[in-house]
Amino acid sequence: MNGAHALLHTLVAGGVDTCFMNPGTSEMHFVAALDGVPEMRGVLTLFEGVATGAADGYARMAERPAAVLLHLGPGLGNGVANLHNARRARSPVVTVVGDHATYHKQFDAPLESDIDALASNVSGWVRRSMKTEELPQDAADAIAHAYGPPGQVATLILPADVSWSDGAQPARPARSGVARPPDEGVVDEVARALRSGEPVGFLVGGRAGRAGVLEQVGALAAGRPAKVLCETFPARLERGAGRLDVERLAYLGERAMAQLEGLAHLVVVDAVSPVSFFAYPGKPSDLVPDGCRVHRLAGPADDVGAALDAVASVLGPGAVPTLASLERPGLPDGDDPLTADVLARTIGALLPEDAIVSDEANTSGLFIAGATAGAPPHDWLTLTGGAIGMGLPLATGAAVACPGRRVLALEADGSAMYTAQALWTMARESADVTVVILANRSYAILNMELRRVGAAAGGPRARSMLDLRDPELDFVSLAAGMGLPATRARTGGELADQLGRALATPGPSLVEAVISR
Amino acid sequence: MNGAHALLHTLVAGGVDTCFMNPGTSEMHFVAALDGVPEMRGVLTLFEGVATGAADGYARMAERPAAVLLHLGPGLGNGVANLHNARRARSPVVTVVGDHATYHKQFDAPLESDIDALASNVSGWVRRSMKTEELPQDAADAIAHAYGPPGQVATLILPADVSWSDGAQPARPARSGVARPPDEGVVDEVARALRSGEPVGFLVGGRAGRAGVLEQVGALAAGRPAKVLCETFPARLERGAGRLDVERLAYLGERAMAQLEGLAHLVVVDAVSPVSFFAYPGKPSDLVPDGCRVHRLAGPADDVGAALDAVASVLGPGAVPTLASLERPGLPDGDDPLTADVLARTIGALLPEDAIVSDEANTSGLFIAGATAGAPPHDWLTLTGGAIGMGLPLATGAAVACPGRRVLALEADGSAMYTAQALWTMARESADVTVVILANRSYAILNMELRRVGAAAGGPRARSMLDLRDPELDFVSLAAGMGLPATRARTGGELADQLGRALATPGPSLVEAVISR
Repeated sequence: MNGAHALLHTLVAGGVDTCFMNPGTSEMHFVAALDGVPEMRGVLTLFEGVATGAADGYARMAERPAAVLLHLGPGLGNGVANLHNARRARSPVVTVVGDHATYHKQFDAPLESDIDALASNVSGWVRRSMKTEELPQDAADAIAHAYGPPGQVATLILPADVSWSDGAQPARPARSGVARPPDEGVVDEVARALRSGEPVGFLVGGRAGRAGVLEQVGALAAGRPAKVLCETFPARLERGAGRLDVERLAYLGERAMAQLEGLAHLVVVDAVSPVSFFAYPGKPSDLVPDGCRVHRLAGPADDVGAALDAVASVLGPGAVPTLASLERPGLPDGDDPLTADVLARTIGALLPEDAIVSDEANTSGLFIAGATAGAPPHDWLTLTGGAIGMGLPLATGAAVACPGRRVLALEADGSAMYTAQALWTMARESADVTVVILANRSYAILNMELRRVGAAAGGPRARSMLDLRDPELDFVSLAAGMGLPATRARTGGELADQLGRALATPGPSLVEAVISR
Repeated sequence: MNGAHALLHTLVAGGVDTCFMNPGTSEMHFVAALDGVPEMRGVLTLFEGVATGAADGYARMAERPAAVLLHLGPGLGNGVANLHNARRARSPVVTVVGDHATYHKQFDAPLESDIDALASNVSGWVRRSMKTEELPQDAADAIAHAYGPPGQVATLILPADVSWSDGAQPARPARSGVARPPDEGVVDEVARALRSGEPVGFLVGGRAGRAGVLEQVGALAAGRPAKVLCETFPARLERGAGRLDVERLAYLGERAMAQLEGLAHLVVVDAVSPVSFFAYPGKPSDLVPDGCRVHRLAGPADDVGAALDAVASVLGPGAVPTLASLERPGLPDGDDPLTADVLARTIGALLPEDAIVSDEANTSGLFIAGATAGAPPHDWLTLTGGAIGMGLPLATGAAVACPGRRVLALEADGSAMYTAQALWTMARESADVTVVILANRSYAILNMELRRVGAAAGGPRARSMLDLRDPELDFVSLAAGMGLPATRARTGGELADQLGRALATPGPSLVEAVISR
């Protein structure tokens, strides 16, 4: 069989049965092979950043990689931003980048570029497959490297002739790697810190955002002078009623430092030691308080649960952690202006059980986490790498991964415009996504940042670069243009009505929430 | 003054007075400096690919670079595809990519990535500016390298602290480089070929697409068994009545080979020797006929006009080339179905004098070049690098560069969706752009390519990956969502009415032409 067919069979055998794609000529044999390998589901996107972001969302929820099919260097370039987020989320992704035929590259045809350099920016593993006979094993290796641990972006560069030539047989994908066992020295250190009576903080991230692991951490902290914090932008946090309610480390360095103040020990569990998102003149980058000792209990390649178990074994039986109880805010009054607070309470009141929230709400979403802490159990996915334009693609991929669950995309207006093409794929796939656009008509976070970096920010020319009012974006029309039913809410009552209806209706729809400032 | 202010003063002094931008926190001092340097015009885009494509369009028309301001690796990634096209167009572009502060990089904050690797994919010159005092000279060097010749993408990576710190003084930009004089050996070779009586082809590209240079080429060919061809995707072709009408080399290799058949000599003038856009099983990549000798008369760093003059001097006075006469097609009948042919004739009948055409029409635009060959003089800009999503940004940048001229963007529906955010910037800048969406509801070129690559293409699953009908894209709504007036045409008469009105109305608007298949 040809390379493309063997590649698809190998992917499916390795558990990779969904491919988000935006193909071109060099990928036509991959596309043609879809009819021969019906186990592979192809999901078309209109822009590569939608495909890569969807693969990230899929991986975070399915806990296995999707494939992404991209067209040469420019196609990969368009997908880089959301692959960056996937890299930071440690999501397993198998990226297949079509390239010119091996013998064609010497001619420097118009689409020729240095794909390998681009791929290196976002990938933990890159290979250029050079022989049809070896392509299936290359694909099997890509899958294994994607799984990790840690999960990563594995990029296979696939010349067109390697794909179209005959002589390949599907390979049997290897099992994924094994997580590293706990480091006994660090386990003992952490146990001593917890026994010392000194203030201890846990900073959890990565796989430690799952409910079971959080409960393990909560049990270690319970009854001790210890607090549990979560990294600022978790890949996936299982939260809500019946789960450990963890405070997220604040985005603003000074607030994060206040959260960490007074700690003698910081135990990081699949997270990185706290660091400011950006540098600011005269402010520190490293947010760990002076004199606080950082203990790296488990990293991304380690067995997180075993490390926490090991600490618990050293300490012996402890207290039972307090879990969040079911407690929703009431719906705001119908005539309330649609402030960020009213928005948050409305979402808190209506969030369905088992929802998946894709959160790229930024400034206007400030209060939503608080208002949903006691909502029925749900998953919370955030902007891990800071590359704006993740929320709508991520929601799309999460919906593909989890049929039957409702996805709520909380999306700032500025951010929505990077990858709004995701709305079309949502409609095409009848994905159960409810999009709420938080329309404040501004890059509001940059107005804040303009002040924070100390830039003399008063000028109208600078401010106009952060303003989205001229002309005003109309997301109801944008959604309609891509086949999505949409409405606009200007009061609390309108939002409650429209959001309630949207959440109860199968398939995707959009509510533009015009935020009062 | 701080680095950002000195950078802006240096850019303006170097003739770079327009900056297309999509900034983030690390670029806030650059943005803040706009109020102190009013000579610099900031043009906000909602997506980085719009900024980079606009800079390309600006450079092709203004013949000087614009600056582009991007936010770290992901921002550059989003701009890569259109920088790829700019690189292939040899457009001068000064890309400024903000990065974390120098001392912040060690912490591997969420947005940290290998910007240098990304930049290398598209840039002829890359420098990371490490000291505020040296930043202005780094910027001056970037401008000089952008100008070339050849024109290129020059990328300056700018750490936030280098931008915000004090101690910089504006630098005086160097003059741009000097084009290389003609190679006398090649000049003699070409003259001998033209005297030989053997069939000679000229293949022009790059700066040889300008009317004056084309006339020089036409004079060498006139009265001899010689033909003039233009590269498939010229950066800028000056054409229409009173100019040399040159046949473009076909996109499909077999058609291009027919155009080149029988040539004993091929003289390339700021173009590359003809090569197939993609490789296809069993078809050649190199399109030069057997036995045809290729003479490289002038490359991108050479003085093209001087090289042609030198050949003319050796040959002595020759014939006068025939230039295109003013000859437009009549408007089709009003009730004609809106086929690709009717579309082409309508555009041929209505194209305004001195228009700038941004052509990303792809399959449905096949007949437009023929129908406009005798239209009043105009510029034609094409998809130089094959990276889809260029047309709308390019049109935006061309309009910013050439106030008072009408820009016509001929845009395929599939291609439009990569960078549709350009519509918002057109509206914001009141750019005189008329967008015609060629809506065939399909990645039609890929349906053709699926057959051409020999893929067993019958399958419905493969074909569905190339189909844009489910749901149907509605460009009238999409345009309205971004503040652009828009209409839909389904017959020849509707198109003529709507296009005529759009071309006559100041500012931007959009016509969705629903193509009958």
